[in-house]
Amino acid sequence: MAIISLITDFGLEDEYAGLMKAVILGIDPLARIVDISHAIEPRNIIQAAFLLESSYRHFPPGSIHVVVVDPGVGTTRALIYLETNAHRFLTPDNGVLSLVMDPLRPASLRRLENPTLWRPRVSATFHGRDILAPAAAHLSRGVDARELGPELNPADMAMLADIRAERSPDGDIVGRIVHIDRFGNLVTNIDAAILQPPGGFAHERPATIRLAGQAIVGIRRTYADVEAGRPVALFGSRGYLEIAVSCGSARSYFNVRRGDAVAVRPGG
Amino acid sequence: MAIISLITDFGLEDEYAGLMKAVILGIDPLARIVDISHAIEPRNIIQAAFLLESSYRHFPPGSIHVVVVDPGVGTTRALIYLETNAHRFLTPDNGVLSLVMDPLRPASLRRLENPTLWRPRVSATFHGRDILAPAAAHLSRGVDARELGPELNPADMAMLADIRAERSPDGDIVGRIVHIDRFGNLVTNIDAAILQPPGGFAHERPATIRLAGQAIVGIRRTYADVEAGRPVALFGSRGYLEIAVSCGSARSYFNVRRGDAVAVRPGG
Amino acid sequence: MAIISLITDFGLEDEYAGLMKAVILGIDPLARIVDISHAIEPRNIIQAAFLLESSYRHFPPGSIHVVVVDPGVGTTRALIYLETNAHRFLTPDNGVLSLVMDPLRPASLRRLENPTLWRPRVSATFHGRDILAPAAAHLSRGVDARELGPELNPADMAMLADIRAERSPDGDIVGRIVHIDRFGNLVTNIDAAILQPPGGFAHERPATIRLAGQAIVGIRRTYADVEAGRPVALFGSRGYLEIAVSCGSARSYFNVRRGDAVAVRPGG
Repeated sequence: MAIISLITDFGLEDEYAGLMKAVILGIDPLARIVDISHAIEPRNIIQAAFLLESSYRHFPPGSIHVVVVDPGVGTTRALIYLETNAHRFLTPDNGVLSLVMDPLRPASLRRLENPTLWRPRVSATFHGRDILAPAAAHLSRGVDARELGPELNPADMAMLADIRAERSPDGDIVGRIVHIDRFGNLVTNIDAAILQPPGGFAHERPATIRLAGQAIVGIRRTYADVEAGRPVALFGSRGYLEIAVSCGSARSYFNVRRGDAVAVRPGG
Repeated sequence: MAIISLITDFGLEDEYAGLMKAVILGIDPLARIVDISHAIEPRNIIQAAFLLESSYRHFPPGSIHVVVVDPGVGTTRALIYLETNAHRFLTPDNGVLSLVMDPLRPASLRRLENPTLWRPRVSATFHGRDILAPAAAHLSRGVDARELGPELNPADMAMLADIRAERSPDGDIVGRIVHIDRFGNLVTNIDAAILQPPGGFAHERPATIRLAGQAIVGIRRTYADVEAGRPVALFGSRGYLEIAVSCGSARSYFNVRRGDAVAVRPGG
Repeated sequence: MAIISLITDFGLEDEYAGLMKAVILGIDPLARIVDISHAIEPRNIIQAAFLLESSYRHFPPGSIHVVVVDPGVGTTRALIYLETNAHRFLTPDNGVLSLVMDPLRPASLRRLENPTLWRPRVSATFHGRDILAPAAAHLSRGVDARELGPELNPADMAMLADIRAERSPDGDIVGRIVHIDRFGNLVTNIDAAILQPPGGFAHERPATIRLAGQAIVGIRRTYADVEAGRPVALFGSRGYLEIAVSCGSARSYFNVRRGDAVAVRPGG
């Protein structure tokens, strides 16, 4: 019995997520299934990659993470299995694992090519239900990952380029908004590590954040560190720079959307 | 212990689905509960009937499917139990089981009339929580279905008329859109079986599909069989004809809504 | 093993609810988790208080209810544990338990101050994941509540004032809409008890309900007690006065929103 997490762009209005669970429980009635999110923007692999990276670490080792954002379903794109950092991942080979792959750690990577571990009838349009869900359930029951299919060279796996924030020649860090949450908080791809001095900061970190033609000075600890209605920059629960408005919506305040640029100039 | 699936028009914003689960787990803490969808359009029994028909087959035999779309709650409409095709169903007697009833297979049908299997206090407005959820949990624990209440003659069960696609005198198949999914895919009531020649098709099936004054030629395998932005007809994961736009929304492309007509002329 | 219920303002689009579950199952893989609702309006503690009060009673005794509506996350506001009415509650100390506290029953109240029962690294912005979820899971596994932290005097707990309906000097009961559900039903803070004569009513209760400049005469049993399209007042499944429109939306019919006033004049 393992924990199986789900990230998809299926939404919750349709039956798609539910049918993945039906298939999983039909094979492993004891599997514990956790929805991380089914609200990935349709076909937005980058958004799913960041969500996966910041989410999977909160699951116990050995968990199985199934990510289905799959515009190429039914074509020749492969379905793959990755084992790394003590976690297991099942996804289409579309780059969604780009942020999970750690070049310094060994990883086991396979193509799913063993139909005895799939549903007897595989549709052309729903491999989440017909291939990935049963594969996850078989792994949860203890099937050896080597049964899934042949090894794949990590160099042959699809990878997304240029999705992390970068340091520009003048020392600024240039990133963008990869997610806007229910509260209107703007989650960026600017990792805390890129801004953190070796010894760590005291309470407020000196930096100027620019977005939508406006500037925020300083990186704070939490939302209520500024007055209600004021913007605040902080490192959010994902571990990335986040722009919020205390008791309000940064989405509305800055009138921005996913993909918009955010720049940080470290220092006072 | 059984799997209990839920289809309702309750949405997920309110507590209604959660309270059905609370009641189920209070009676059978080991029941596994799967949400198929709580986003049925309020009171749309036809939409729920199609969703149920295409979903329940993906659950293991013996599963218990609870469907609550119940505008008549608290009136004299009955609540019923159906056992057929190795599956069990609990619903108001409103026609939602029309597509699940198979005239060629034996079925066991009962009225729920045994209040010892209900919540001690039954509200007038939420029989999903107070009658159907506890009945499902008692069945899951092994209570014999005969305890639920007296047998009902299948001929006395409410049935929906004219909800399947039909063949017109000129040989066209005339159906309609019964569901539009998150991607804007248009799911029709045109069953693959009505178009499938006995020997099956090769890759592309010859047919002309008409909707909203436009035509699509051919039935393909999957979304990416046409260029991005182009419409495509295929048999979707429900087993019904579906109209999609590759990497786009057929809802927007055709500017249609649930209930609109779709016609298919088979052949080249 | 216990049942853990969740009420938050996190929505289901983001990963926040899923990560609370990941943390819970990492500590107690057998915990049963039930989402009551994640659609509390951001920061609306009153809405959450009413939802909690009407929901928790449907769970079995011993259930653990985690409520996270927490605009003050990361500040000095306490996190607390309450045990009362055979149920257990974990929340920020923000008044959300106001309707659950029963002055006539003994209650055990504690501050969460034992970091050995939290996640090793506690973020400043997501105590639901880092403190409340692990505390719930440890309780579910059987940890004694006394380990959570020191006792708190109930008189020192945050309480919301004036959130119940009140009887005005002229005998009218004056309340307001605290929730509007998916069907457009208007749920008020007017408790059935305040209107119920000791012996109970016959079928229709005599009363005149006023809202939005209009009047409804009589309190009925269920939605279908009036013609389709007509407004109806009844005591809903929460046990509070509810204004609905049969086969329609009271929200649209009356053009009202949460917070608007509702008055009841008992009698014929």
